Amino acid sequence: MSERKQLKIAMIGSGSIARAHSNAFHQVGHFFEVPYGLNLQVVCGRNQEKLHAFASQWGWAETAADWQEVVGRKDLDVIDIAVPNALHAPIAMAAAAAGKILFCEKPLALSLAEAQTMAAAGKAVPNLVWFNYRRVPAVAFAKQLITEGKLGRIYHYRSYYFNQSGVDPTKGQTWRYRASEAGSGAIGDLLSHSIDMAIYLNGNLEDLSAMKHTFIPGREVDDAVSVMAHFANGSLGTFEASRFGVGRRNGIGFEVYGQKGSLAFDLEDMNHVRFCDATEPANLQAYRNILVTGPEHPYWTNFWKPGHLVGYEHTFIATLGDFLHNLARGDPFHPSFDDGVRTQAVLEAVDTSAAAKNWIRLQSE
Amino acid sequence: MSERKQLKIAMIGSGSIARAHSNAFHQVGHFFEVPYGLNLQVVCGRNQEKLHAFASQWGWAETAADWQEVVGRKDLDVIDIAVPNALHAPIAMAAAAAGKILFCEKPLALSLAEAQTMAAAGKAVPNLVWFNYRRVPAVAFAKQLITEGKLGRIYHYRSYYFNQSGVDPTKGQTWRYRASEAGSGAIGDLLSHSIDMAIYLNGNLEDLSAMKHTFIPGREVDDAVSVMAHFANGSLGTFEASRFGVGRRNGIGFEVYGQKGSLAFDLEDMNHVRFCDATEPANLQAYRNILVTGPEHPYWTNFWKPGHLVGYEHTFIATLGDFLHNLARGDPFHPSFDDGVRTQAVLEAVDTSAAAKNWIRLQSE
Amino acid sequence: MSERKQLKIAMIGSGSIARAHSNAFHQVGHFFEVPYGLNLQVVCGRNQEKLHAFASQWGWAETAADWQEVVGRKDLDVIDIAVPNALHAPIAMAAAAAGKILFCEKPLALSLAEAQTMAAAGKAVPNLVWFNYRRVPAVAFAKQLITEGKLGRIYHYRSYYFNQSGVDPTKGQTWRYRASEAGSGAIGDLLSHSIDMAIYLNGNLEDLSAMKHTFIPGREVDDAVSVMAHFANGSLGTFEASRFGVGRRNGIGFEVYGQKGSLAFDLEDMNHVRFCDATEPANLQAYRNILVTGPEHPYWTNFWKPGHLVGYEHTFIATLGDFLHNLARGDPFHPSFDDGVRTQAVLEAVDTSAAAKNWIRLQSE
Amino acid sequence: MSERKQLKIAMIGSGSIARAHSNAFHQVGHFFEVPYGLNLQVVCGRNQEKLHAFASQWGWAETAADWQEVVGRKDLDVIDIAVPNALHAPIAMAAAAAGKILFCEKPLALSLAEAQTMAAAGKAVPNLVWFNYRRVPAVAFAKQLITEGKLGRIYHYRSYYFNQSGVDPTKGQTWRYRASEAGSGAIGDLLSHSIDMAIYLNGNLEDLSAMKHTFIPGREVDDAVSVMAHFANGSLGTFEASRFGVGRRNGIGFEVYGQKGSLAFDLEDMNHVRFCDATEPANLQAYRNILVTGPEHPYWTNFWKPGHLVGYEHTFIATLGDFLHNLARGDPFHPSFDDGVRTQAVLEAVDTSAAAKNWIRLQSE
Repeated sequence: MSERKQLKIAMIGSGSIARAHSNAFHQVGHFFEVPYGLNLQVVCGRNQEKLHAFASQWGWAETAADWQEVVGRKDLDVIDIAVPNALHAPIAMAAAAAGKILFCEKPLALSLAEAQTMAAAGKAVPNLVWFNYRRVPAVAFAKQLITEGKLGRIYHYRSYYFNQSGVDPTKGQTWRYRASEAGSGAIGDLLSHSIDMAIYLNGNLEDLSAMKHTFIPGREVDDAVSVMAHFANGSLGTFEASRFGVGRRNGIGFEVYGQKGSLAFDLEDMNHVRFCDATEPANLQAYRNILVTGPEHPYWTNFWKPGHLVGYEHTFIATLGDFLHNLARGDPFHPSFDDGVRTQAVLEAVDTSAAAKNWIRLQSE
Repeated sequence: MSERKQLKIAMIGSGSIARAHSNAFHQVGHFFEVPYGLNLQVVCGRNQEKLHAFASQWGWAETAADWQEVVGRKDLDVIDIAVPNALHAPIAMAAAAAGKILFCEKPLALSLAEAQTMAAAGKAVPNLVWFNYRRVPAVAFAKQLITEGKLGRIYHYRSYYFNQSGVDPTKGQTWRYRASEAGSGAIGDLLSHSIDMAIYLNGNLEDLSAMKHTFIPGREVDDAVSVMAHFANGSLGTFEASRFGVGRRNGIGFEVYGQKGSLAFDLEDMNHVRFCDATEPANLQAYRNILVTGPEHPYWTNFWKPGHLVGYEHTFIATLGDFLHNLARGDPFHPSFDDGVRTQAVLEAVDTSAAAKNWIRLQSE
Repeated sequence: MSERKQLKIAMIGSGSIARAHSNAFHQVGHFFEVPYGLNLQVVCGRNQEKLHAFASQWGWAETAADWQEVVGRKDLDVIDIAVPNALHAPIAMAAAAAGKILFCEKPLALSLAEAQTMAAAGKAVPNLVWFNYRRVPAVAFAKQLITEGKLGRIYHYRSYYFNQSGVDPTKGQTWRYRASEAGSGAIGDLLSHSIDMAIYLNGNLEDLSAMKHTFIPGREVDDAVSVMAHFANGSLGTFEASRFGVGRRNGIGFEVYGQKGSLAFDLEDMNHVRFCDATEPANLQAYRNILVTGPEHPYWTNFWKPGHLVGYEHTFIATLGDFLHNLARGDPFHPSFDDGVRTQAVLEAVDTSAAAKNWIRLQSE
Repeated sequence: MSERKQLKIAMIGSGSIARAHSNAFHQVGHFFEVPYGLNLQVVCGRNQEKLHAFASQWGWAETAADWQEVVGRKDLDVIDIAVPNALHAPIAMAAAAAGKILFCEKPLALSLAEAQTMAAAGKAVPNLVWFNYRRVPAVAFAKQLITEGKLGRIYHYRSYYFNQSGVDPTKGQTWRYRASEAGSGAIGDLLSHSIDMAIYLNGNLEDLSAMKHTFIPGREVDDAVSVMAHFANGSLGTFEASRFGVGRRNGIGFEVYGQKGSLAFDLEDMNHVRFCDATEPANLQAYRNILVTGPEHPYWTNFWKPGHLVGYEHTFIATLGDFLHNLARGDPFHPSFDDGVRTQAVLEAVDTSAAAKNWIRLQSE
């Protein structure tokens, strides 16, 4: 369909997450009716040799070394930020000033203030934060069940994110372990996903108390964090995130308990949701393990036949598909930079509470 | 309640299964309203030293060495047969002739003809075969779901029983590996349970084709057996039983697929039944993992509070509880010797089919 | 073995937990080589009609209405306290003064001070608190793995206890919902088990911060509680307990993450422990789901054959078996009243922290 | 890399499986170092309107209506056959004659004779059958464990494939239910995958006995099939495949029991393999649930980071990646048309045995 508007994309960054972004740019048109053609125009990074290989493998037309130059180009429509956290703000501010559509990796920023500045600048342009786990089909289905009232009043929201990335003491050399580049450790890297999903599924938090801990002496950032919270809807929240969850690879999940039922999700089994309907006859009440692959489930008209599973990458594809669909219709998209701010406010409260060892009330919007 | 009728029990045998029987005799009155007092009067066995220790530990009043003498005693009401298969028939025939209530371990006999003779003799007295797995609460609940029509027309009945008891070649010294005492291997030891449960849950078989195999050279009995079958209700059956299921300890289970739903059970997770209701909205159809411990479930007014699990021994207790309840009311009890014959007929057909490598039609009753 | 010393037991209380105690008194001799004969001498309760039925069903020789009178009898050796929490202390104090062996339901007391008084009095006599979940064979096996160093340094101890007993607002009429009788709600009823297991498995806590909540207006006790903590061994702890965990029946469990591996347990699947050995080749590292029923596992020489599951009641039987074994040898037994104090100290800190919304440091012993 | 050889692909067919093929053609270069550029040149189908939409969505340069014309084009290198079974042979024969590289959907043919003719013709050209499930990373890992001897001598190979596609009686209008187009029902559609995987994992079959059944009157093809078999390596095999497995969506799986261990796989949980190592200490022997997503696992250097799951489509991508890699090196590839013949021989024996109700010996090669 040559009449479709073409969007020229520049991606800043070429690490592992940039692979997932590139894949989404290629794949979105295969699975979604998108009213845009996407051109993978330029990928920008430091190591030019690696960058050329990356561009070749993932079909980027050009490479570039200087993100400021890229952002200044008139021919580009989208700036996709896939670099360490400390660079999110400068790139986003420049790109917003240049009127670009903004895609940004999570967490949005190093601090709440920085995130707020970015969101203010981003108001003029369509924007997106890659909190991709909202669009695991099973998570979107959980959201649908909650929205339909299948759980009734919510009592408990429990969240966890465990991997084992921090255990090896020699690993702490990457940017993710430097305060100047990452801002935080498990808080920004892991907990940010959990908080975004919690707000998506269960609404805003009212107050919280947190603890954080660094197991490896000399490491600049937190290895693990725990949070107790009250949600605005009256439910209780607990969160735990750690890079010392030996045995777990990418183990993000949640449990939601309500008056009429409860549900649970774990990313290591990402095509399923466990759901207990407490309004059924007592002898049949139990967790059912729903394979979220039917035509009645979110995104499954997009992907494969019933019973055929999807993987990690589809969370990015679905995020992008929804964004482009809404962009064409002029509808707001979530998670936007404003959503990124909402999560950042919680992350900052977590950090503050953990340092001060007290409860922190979150500002209502 | 001193006015309750007292039943004096003699148990022939003192092996591991005799422990489970003894336990049931002690425990049935704690969990069931039984209109009888049970006296553990005499346990009979060969090794008198071991037998005394057994009697002391399990509260048997007397020990005896000669089962014929025991069966001949006028003061005893019940003869419980817990010895190798080859002795089932002689003891049962003598006890039936003496008018005793008969309890017999499975499989009922070494052959169909022998089983039929026993059942004919047993017609005069109340009798029971210890196919205890019918009364796993979760199995009884599965039966209830099927009887209520929750699965609709049945398409498939799949059954398996795997343990790893046969792998060690030096193990083949017990009676279970001698044809003269056991009659068969996996067929009588394992498949018999599967067949009794299948008939209980899905009705009679019409025809079958089987294969059997002995992995260890020189072993007298089958190590493994497989069966394909048609049931009288039009469903297809498959059965597999093996002592070479490395990794499985006591892994008996079944899956039943019907037009309206399906269910599955595995004894290694014996307090659960998995059930899928295919009449529900498509997006919610899934296997639910029902913890069969609610007051709405079979036997749970008998045992513990909701959510509190039962173990292996409760299958014997529930069998005995139901038997005594029916005995007091004059109601028929199942599995009886007649049920034992029904299973024995299938086992014999399995053996014949496996030897002749052809399909065998089972005689309708 | 008539030469065994006979212990005459009096049990105060005849509710559902009293069934589990009665069962243990009957069964311990069948599964453990106990050097005592246990006589179920007298059960004491208020409703005499119900009490007679209970005594008849569970084989108690006598009934009584007045616990003080019972405690004063010279012929009794053991006083088993199975009544609401508020009565634990008066009965225990009287029984200790009378030199009786003391068994007491959990939590030990209404307050730390009360518990300390009881423990001081109890020093003179053998005593036991029925924190029975330590002796789920799978929990005992988890303890063994930790003690052997299979997990190495511990990073995280996560604990939860969810049931749905509190959701029905009309249910709040039993003693468990009255502050005067129960002292607390989820804290004493559920969290107490979790804390005892945590101390058993992972040692003492150093400090904690807690929140508690009552969902039903007018209810006197907490419906739910959450705790963040540091353990003395440097690991982080989180605890959550709630009567509003819709879908969970008796869902107590824990996860322990250490440098060399991790493990997990859930009582609704009580015969299994999940264990990941992180010292294995990377491609084989995974949670293995161990069926704790082998002869190499704790208590399995006591119970049934490999692969044959045990249920709820065996936790009481094993507790009693170990107690009697140690009693005969003069060895200390755990959990004792002193262990009950240790847990009570944590419960009181939880309550205080939740009220004051701050961190509380636990006194080291 | 403009110097890579370009392969121009023509795909015959545009149904749902053609989406998975198209996706693989696009994606293989992103995940594998393939020495070829793939051009999606022409897609051929009957309904031109639908075909244009398909071509537009999946990036095919041209459409065509006549496969014979397509096969005759000199500019094309690869013919990919993604049409009903009855067309496999004519297209493959023509394409082989024209010297094209051949890709063909499974099952290879309607009969063994037809498959043999195709394989003979295909000898002159590189060829592939889309038995994609061999290259689920978890299946490839299972193969690796077996090849390394981790299971020792194999005793049992158990296989099943259940979906619920056949239950709706009105559904029988598609080509899959017409004998003339599909050849068979569950046998060719489902069992073919199971047989190919069995041969891949456990080697050739020696003999078998089968039953098949059609539940819906008037339906031309089998709805369900069961097979008992002996493998050449001395192990016993059982197979079951059905379109009446209500509750299962795409439930293909297998269990392999050997002297040193056992393993299990189910496609509805396709990123995991369950493995029990029976050479470990007895108290630790258990099924571990391995998340096959580590860098030490097959294909994971190709796909995402550790712990990040893949879906259905990656089985096609990996098949194609390996094919192209071997093509460049001149190495043989499996599953080839010869492998397709091997499976077809078993399918034909199954059909013959089920009709004749006897055992069939498979010809050794």
